[in-house]
Amino acid sequence: MNKQAVLHIPDSQYCYPIERNAVELRLRVSSEDEFDGVTVVYGNKYAYHSIRSEAPLKKNYSDGSFDYYTVTLLLKDVRLVYIFVLEQGEKKYYFSEDGITETYDFDKAYYNAFQLPFINSADIMPVVDWMRGAVFYNIFVDRFFRGNREKDDSYINMEWGEIPHPKSFAGGDIKGITQKLDYLKGLGVTALYLTPIFCSVSNHKYDIYDYFEIDPQFGSKHDLQELIGGAHSRGMRVMLDAVFNHCSEKLPQFADVKEKGRRSAYFDWFLIDGDKPDPAKYNYQCFSFCSYMPKFNTSNPKVQEYLRKIAVYWVENFDIDGWRLDVSDEVSHDFWRGLRKAVKAVKPDCAIIGENWHDAHPFLCGDQYDGIMNYALTKACLDYFAYGVFGAKEFADKLNALYMRNSDQVNRMMMNLLDSHDTHRFYSLSNKNMDALICALAVIFMHPGAAGVYYGTEIPLEGGYDPDCRRTMDWNAVQGNTRVKEMMARLAQMRRHEAIRYGGVRFYAKDDIFVLERSHENKTLRLNVSEHGGADIRQRGKILLCYNYKDKTADGFSFVIEEES
Amino acid sequence: MNKQAVLHIPDSQYCYPIERNAVELRLRVSSEDEFDGVTVVYGNKYAYHSIRSEAPLKKNYSDGSFDYYTVTLLLKDVRLVYIFVLEQGEKKYYFSEDGITETYDFDKAYYNAFQLPFINSADIMPVVDWMRGAVFYNIFVDRFFRGNREKDDSYINMEWGEIPHPKSFAGGDIKGITQKLDYLKGLGVTALYLTPIFCSVSNHKYDIYDYFEIDPQFGSKHDLQELIGGAHSRGMRVMLDAVFNHCSEKLPQFADVKEKGRRSAYFDWFLIDGDKPDPAKYNYQCFSFCSYMPKFNTSNPKVQEYLRKIAVYWVENFDIDGWRLDVSDEVSHDFWRGLRKAVKAVKPDCAIIGENWHDAHPFLCGDQYDGIMNYALTKACLDYFAYGVFGAKEFADKLNALYMRNSDQVNRMMMNLLDSHDTHRFYSLSNKNMDALICALAVIFMHPGAAGVYYGTEIPLEGGYDPDCRRTMDWNAVQGNTRVKEMMARLAQMRRHEAIRYGGVRFYAKDDIFVLERSHENKTLRLNVSEHGGADIRQRGKILLCYNYKDKTADGFSFVIEEES
Repeated sequence: MNKQAVLHIPDSQYCYPIERNAVELRLRVSSEDEFDGVTVVYGNKYAYHSIRSEAPLKKNYSDGSFDYYTVTLLLKDVRLVYIFVLEQGEKKYYFSEDGITETYDFDKAYYNAFQLPFINSADIMPVVDWMRGAVFYNIFVDRFFRGNREKDDSYINMEWGEIPHPKSFAGGDIKGITQKLDYLKGLGVTALYLTPIFCSVSNHKYDIYDYFEIDPQFGSKHDLQELIGGAHSRGMRVMLDAVFNHCSEKLPQFADVKEKGRRSAYFDWFLIDGDKPDPAKYNYQCFSFCSYMPKFNTSNPKVQEYLRKIAVYWVENFDIDGWRLDVSDEVSHDFWRGLRKAVKAVKPDCAIIGENWHDAHPFLCGDQYDGIMNYALTKACLDYFAYGVFGAKEFADKLNALYMRNSDQVNRMMMNLLDSHDTHRFYSLSNKNMDALICALAVIFMHPGAAGVYYGTEIPLEGGYDPDCRRTMDWNAVQGNTRVKEMMARLAQMRRHEAIRYGGVRFYAKDDIFVLERSHENKTLRLNVSEHGGADIRQRGKILLCYNYKDKTADGFSFVIEEES
Repeated sequence: MNKQAVLHIPDSQYCYPIERNAVELRLRVSSEDEFDGVTVVYGNKYAYHSIRSEAPLKKNYSDGSFDYYTVTLLLKDVRLVYIFVLEQGEKKYYFSEDGITETYDFDKAYYNAFQLPFINSADIMPVVDWMRGAVFYNIFVDRFFRGNREKDDSYINMEWGEIPHPKSFAGGDIKGITQKLDYLKGLGVTALYLTPIFCSVSNHKYDIYDYFEIDPQFGSKHDLQELIGGAHSRGMRVMLDAVFNHCSEKLPQFADVKEKGRRSAYFDWFLIDGDKPDPAKYNYQCFSFCSYMPKFNTSNPKVQEYLRKIAVYWVENFDIDGWRLDVSDEVSHDFWRGLRKAVKAVKPDCAIIGENWHDAHPFLCGDQYDGIMNYALTKACLDYFAYGVFGAKEFADKLNALYMRNSDQVNRMMMNLLDSHDTHRFYSLSNKNMDALICALAVIFMHPGAAGVYYGTEIPLEGGYDPDCRRTMDWNAVQGNTRVKEMMARLAQMRRHEAIRYGGVRFYAKDDIFVLERSHENKTLRLNVSEHGGADIRQRGKILLCYNYKDKTADGFSFVIEEES
């Protein structure tokens, strides 16, 4: 037994409350070790020396290096104390805070057993229910559709359909999105995520100089009200982009500091090395190396208050349903904690999604955001579907590993995506392999959490790295009934299934077939994916949806989604 | 190489900022693996694909199962991204979020390298400076000394010196402590921690019915002012006990609920299963199984506000220097976060020490408390000095393991202790082995963090489990110059050494000698402990303090503290 591989961390993604009397436990062991029994011995913290219960754990996840045994405990007394017992033949191992031992003294457990000492409701992370089955459509506003034909369009400097440059303006706006709501509804979209819409001189608007106004290129507050009203009436949610890491150098507070230096009341709002910010000297913190995007000092309580007010303003006055947080990993935890409190006080089911590309567990413990843009899943999909780095087994392994990074609640609020305005388009990275794209969408749509689709994927639009991934939407291509569009709409339909919204998940490989299984109550949905078109990859059960299945001329990736009761 | 033993978690005790441009990294590996090199390859998140630096890690801690390699990085750019490289002969292993791999693609590092994306000052845990060298004297107030001879003493029901019962009252009070400040100063005490002093009908006063008043048995607000003034004028700090997990059934708010049930405005202040709390039915949450101590619903914002006000009141009006938090592990994280903000806003160097007996890392990330009562260290000292379960190596292993549970900052704010009002006395558990007690004190006093001494240890007082560990202080025994008292005072003196307050630490065994080493700048302090009195356990350097050393008639535990420059 590889004792050093065994891992458990109480009050983390390895042990967390899911309800006031229910706790999920996970135990990690080496995948090279087989056990005849894995059991949790648990009880009440004050009576554990004399009264204990036992429950078996089941191997539910495996990432190739590690197996994860899990159990959900329903507790009468929520002052939980516990240890694990691992059995191999005659051998019994005890696992506590003291590590693996061959004996265990329950009389001294108050020193070294694991604990979740009390389940306080304030510490239970709730799931924003609408995220469970959500289909997001992620829109780079300038490039989606121009709805307002009356506006001053002297800023537009490219033809719709031209390949964009970093400083291109195509004219897309909020009205344009509103006009396409029925189209989106038809695609099965249930939520929109828009890149920033506030006052900014750039096309991407990630450099904001007025957070309380909408950029006139994109429209007005009235336009936003119409969009949100139109969306809500169609059962769709709207998430906006919050750029709280940095601002535009034109933000009045920064301009004041630029002018007055230390004499400015806003000097401590930024992180300046010297008496005055000087773009030529690059003597202040910025986003990346962009001197026109000075970084906020989000440790400063005054900055925190200012940004919190912005976040609350748009929720309170426009009833938006979510905030996506730009460059959220570089912003202080302290600020996010306050932001969450403020936003959730106004609208508890306002989703808060961070832009962290990496394992974001420290931000996802219930006190900061709900989920993140799941770029680690993006990478796994690329490795399997586009790069051919992974086979089915490696892909399943990776999805297990990623799932184990966070609690089940968080996993149900992840925004899963194949690409975005910050990456190459998946379709282009896969060498325009439409089968790969469609099967990757099937994974994203069957996976716990929200499915995020970047605008144009349904056509599918091509695009390399920024700005090429921000091409204008091709509304002619939409007319034809593209394969991707059709499959996306059918997959979106599937998301209403209870097993997708509430079911557990398992990822595994069966020979060279990748399997993603969702189970809820008596129903199991199973996605089988193969690299070989035309193969019979059905296991058993009723076929709900399939692609490239049993068509002998088919090539490339194929999938079958089946249902079993 | 045991790949599954390798562990690193960014933004945790394995990677945390210690200053605005300095980060401490730890990497855990199997202690069975030897490496020819362990290196961190790091850089700026936005330039890592092209510009990288390297720094070697050093094996500084070892707990018998795992070795911990560490390095402190001084950063020019605080947007840290990094991976580790482990070398064994010709073999090179890369360790990233993707685990151990034999190749690594730096061009795709934005997907899977480790990160601490930005050091925000609000997320750097500061050290309460006075805790570094503190010597706490922990007082169970009713049993220490009666100073007020005028008070109504009809409540006193035991003779001073009698063995206490659960309901005994001996008459100790705040004035009594004030009168003994010079005695404590002579012992080397720099801080007092008092069990609760607020209105309560019990001798321990952990069931409080008025948090804004001092129990008349113990004195008045004026008495507290005198105590704190007297302490502060002697350079001593005063920490009080905050009982925020539960209260007395006599607290007006609970009494109101008991009377009115759901109609009470305070119904949601408690956790009641039914319409009315009924002690006979035990239908509400309590501390342990004590129905007279109803548990607060610390998830309720109104309760949070009420308790925060109490905490702030005593800091603001009485200038107390710390709060010890009773049963803190059962209180919501959410509440502790707000409490910390409120208390630190009034007095940033007010120490906040939780009562968590177990690994408390989720509470010690900088947003909740500063440290805890270090009962895990208590247990290790018992296993080595009292129970003989550990030899020197196992003791060193355990101290390494415990040190690795938390960041360096937290380790410097732990309250290290051998016993308390909630345990048997160490002296009794060691079968009145005074050598064991003195050498254990040497460990506690040389260890990073505050040293906590339970009143009477210096005599030393005997005592079994509660209430026996709460015997009255024997002021006659104090007259004689006891060995413990003398050694404690000299060890306390030692705590002023820069190496104790600011130095790094190493724990190891050299043959059967336990060694605890503290190094700062050019100076090293080394504590050598042996189970054999009279042995020459000096290594090299000047002896600052020793016990049972080279005295051929000596027996039992011995120690030498030496200094090297």
